[in-house]
Amino acid sequence: MEMPAPNASILARKHQIVARLREVLPEGSVISELSETRAYECDALTAYRCPPLCAVLPSSTEEVSAVLKICFEEGVPVVPRGSGTSLAGGALPTADSVILGVAKMNRVLETDYANRFIRVQTGRTNLSVSGAVAEEDFFYAPDPSSQLACAIAGNIAMNSGGAHCLKYGVTTNNLMGVTMVLMDGTVIELGGAHLDAPGLDLLGVICGSEGQLGVVTEATLRILRKPEGARPVLMGFAANEVAGECVSDIIKAGVLPVAIEFMDRPCIEACEAFAKAGYPMCEALLIVEVEGSEAEIAEQLEKIIEIAKRHNPVELREARDEDEAGRIWLGRKSAFGAMGQINDYMCLDGTIPVSSLPHVLRRIGEMSEEFGLKVANVFHAGDGNMHPLILFNANEEGQLELCERFGAEILKLCVEVGGCLTGEHGVGIEKRDLMHTQYAPADLEAQMAVKDVFDPHWLLNPAKVFPLDASEARRSAALAAE
Amino acid sequence: MEMPAPNASILARKHQIVARLREVLPEGSVISELSETRAYECDALTAYRCPPLCAVLPSSTEEVSAVLKICFEEGVPVVPRGSGTSLAGGALPTADSVILGVAKMNRVLETDYANRFIRVQTGRTNLSVSGAVAEEDFFYAPDPSSQLACAIAGNIAMNSGGAHCLKYGVTTNNLMGVTMVLMDGTVIELGGAHLDAPGLDLLGVICGSEGQLGVVTEATLRILRKPEGARPVLMGFAANEVAGECVSDIIKAGVLPVAIEFMDRPCIEACEAFAKAGYPMCEALLIVEVEGSEAEIAEQLEKIIEIAKRHNPVELREARDEDEAGRIWLGRKSAFGAMGQINDYMCLDGTIPVSSLPHVLRRIGEMSEEFGLKVANVFHAGDGNMHPLILFNANEEGQLELCERFGAEILKLCVEVGGCLTGEHGVGIEKRDLMHTQYAPADLEAQMAVKDVFDPHWLLNPAKVFPLDASEARRSAALAAE
Repeated sequence: MEMPAPNASILARKHQIVARLREVLPEGSVISELSETRAYECDALTAYRCPPLCAVLPSSTEEVSAVLKICFEEGVPVVPRGSGTSLAGGALPTADSVILGVAKMNRVLETDYANRFIRVQTGRTNLSVSGAVAEEDFFYAPDPSSQLACAIAGNIAMNSGGAHCLKYGVTTNNLMGVTMVLMDGTVIELGGAHLDAPGLDLLGVICGSEGQLGVVTEATLRILRKPEGARPVLMGFAANEVAGECVSDIIKAGVLPVAIEFMDRPCIEACEAFAKAGYPMCEALLIVEVEGSEAEIAEQLEKIIEIAKRHNPVELREARDEDEAGRIWLGRKSAFGAMGQINDYMCLDGTIPVSSLPHVLRRIGEMSEEFGLKVANVFHAGDGNMHPLILFNANEEGQLELCERFGAEILKLCVEVGGCLTGEHGVGIEKRDLMHTQYAPADLEAQMAVKDVFDPHWLLNPAKVFPLDASEARRSAALAAE
Repeated sequence: MEMPAPNASILARKHQIVARLREVLPEGSVISELSETRAYECDALTAYRCPPLCAVLPSSTEEVSAVLKICFEEGVPVVPRGSGTSLAGGALPTADSVILGVAKMNRVLETDYANRFIRVQTGRTNLSVSGAVAEEDFFYAPDPSSQLACAIAGNIAMNSGGAHCLKYGVTTNNLMGVTMVLMDGTVIELGGAHLDAPGLDLLGVICGSEGQLGVVTEATLRILRKPEGARPVLMGFAANEVAGECVSDIIKAGVLPVAIEFMDRPCIEACEAFAKAGYPMCEALLIVEVEGSEAEIAEQLEKIIEIAKRHNPVELREARDEDEAGRIWLGRKSAFGAMGQINDYMCLDGTIPVSSLPHVLRRIGEMSEEFGLKVANVFHAGDGNMHPLILFNANEEGQLELCERFGAEILKLCVEVGGCLTGEHGVGIEKRDLMHTQYAPADLEAQMAVKDVFDPHWLLNPAKVFPLDASEARRSAALAAE
């Protein structure tokens, strides 16, 4: 991916900029030595790296505001960073940017069980939000795979989902309000611990905005009562098409499992070799999980199994206890690790209408042969969020580029069948130039005009989300207008 | 409510503007005679009336685009209108504005059961969306009281809810995508029949934007499989506080009824006198409805009744059949009609944290004595959406103003306890000047800056949502800059 050349004037003023930042932050919160800024040179899209001008680690909304005010005055780009787990390069710095890391901001500010919300600083990790309310048997629903590490700030930036979002929705469905600092240091409040918001509801556009509009420092999150229990069932099918039809029939029947996970044969083989979960060797596996009381679980599973049987499953395994449930999930949860064991891989993140699944898998298979690269498919089938893993050899010249070209073709296919470029990983740098595929010029212009409002100089998280030529043109125009 | 003086230049050009509109619309779609434009002089907030310059009734996105382009060029304000059921004056015209009614645009464009969506023109009424998918046992979840009449366009503009939104969410949770025409005639697509949207998700800010950003002409809506059955239970309590605690306990227990409706004594008395539903005369009534299969219903009701019993109910009546269920809902559903029978009333729409309910009801009671006006409370208790009905006599000089002042105090109280000005009716003209109570200047500025982007000349739905001084200042500045 091409990145814009750094602004020489900013590089020349590094000393002065760092000095000003040190004035407003406590000791140790401004990192400017190259040996230390290297820690911030990439996120989980490790193919791209660039150490930032410096990194700051504020502890409060006030400190974030002070930092942004300085960067605004100095014309310095700012790259907000949660835990750096982005798979799309969402937290990749440029050489002339300040990394604004929220990791120190991890406090719980308020917990209210009667009104079912928690307010936290956004550096708090996803799993530790649930941890903070576990004693009262509550939890926070969105559960991205990286939940042990990823920060709420990043979840909000990418509108993260997870295996259980079929039932509980993604971040935007569980976010009630935020405190956000604009690029000029202004602090605004959006939403809150109440239903709806009078006037324009800006919360929806903040969620998923990938650090383009401001830095979210505090968040009010919906918490839910833990279900009494949960139970998965494993189903094996002789063809992807059949598994796809089974998913469609479950959804159409009005049963609402918390998760429907789909794995194709290459994925099953890799998982089984790695985790030895006892998966049957077949073309497609589904893990369907339901939750509730014993009676609710039994009733839902009965319906689901009845539907599955109509599709001649080669395997149908209901978990009888915790241990069997654990084994059913074991393979799926180690899928990404399993792939990493045998290959380098690129994890894609398109969405499609659930009914297009068989067609899309067939086309991916054909393209896999054309490109000469294997693909394993893991899929949140209930809500149409695909995660094709393209396997390649990073040490072989040209393979990364080939893999990227193949990935782009898969995402174009997703758009073609009525889906979209990204379900939960975000656009970042990875998909910015594919935005032309998804949107007509007028659609993109509307988005960029909203960005203009919040960040008129285009300083926030530069060279991402929007096609590079478009965002660079916007940034140059802003500079020229000064 | 004060409205700005009409623009004399526009009134003088009426003939020319109407002629241009007739050029792009079929015969009969432009209404300009005063005898006919009177039909558009108000919405359901009938205290305020003003016939528009003219009204247009386009049949397609293309016609809407042509109309808006002309109005943009002529500098004429446009007031979008669904079915005119707004209780907040959301569709109130100004004398110099064109009413753009979407009532003719009521076609179903696409139905997809496998992927659970329907695409409609936005003039279609809420109930007829469910009607279009009823044969396959699907339904569209948001169910405002006015669902027989209100249009999807208005539902999107106000982010409407309904009695069942505790379980299914409000419009924003069931809206997947829209086609929207900007003020200059540009057509944009937001979201679609897929999960999430890459880049900035503008769909969230469009939903609930009260016609300030564009005219939504087509919508993709989530449809759901109808539950097997539903059953309400009626509970009477000796005090509002006790009923409030019972609601809190049900929510905390993790049971998710589809509806929890609350009525206080003045409301019970009026409903009973009107509908004779056999309600017990007590201080507070709850109607709690659960749905699912027989087994699910039984299990949920068992838990709910167990919780209710801990609060010493004076009545606990489970519906044993359809007829009894109908009788339990009868009173609640006729609440507004019952009130209208005995009095003029103003229906408010604030939200509060559920746990503040007893405090808020006590304060409303005290204020009711201070103002000398009675209040009956109907409340979507599950999600904290209050509908206090202030009773007054419209024929008595000064009573409307007194009622409006009292209403404003109640809404300020909602904000004070951590709630907000409106749950589903919108700000309209009714609450625009209370926006200062809800938002700090920087918060309001962020909203108005977004409005600037979509509607730089502030022509769309003028004098609403934002405080009048602020929106008029913005409009004058835009005029001066031309």
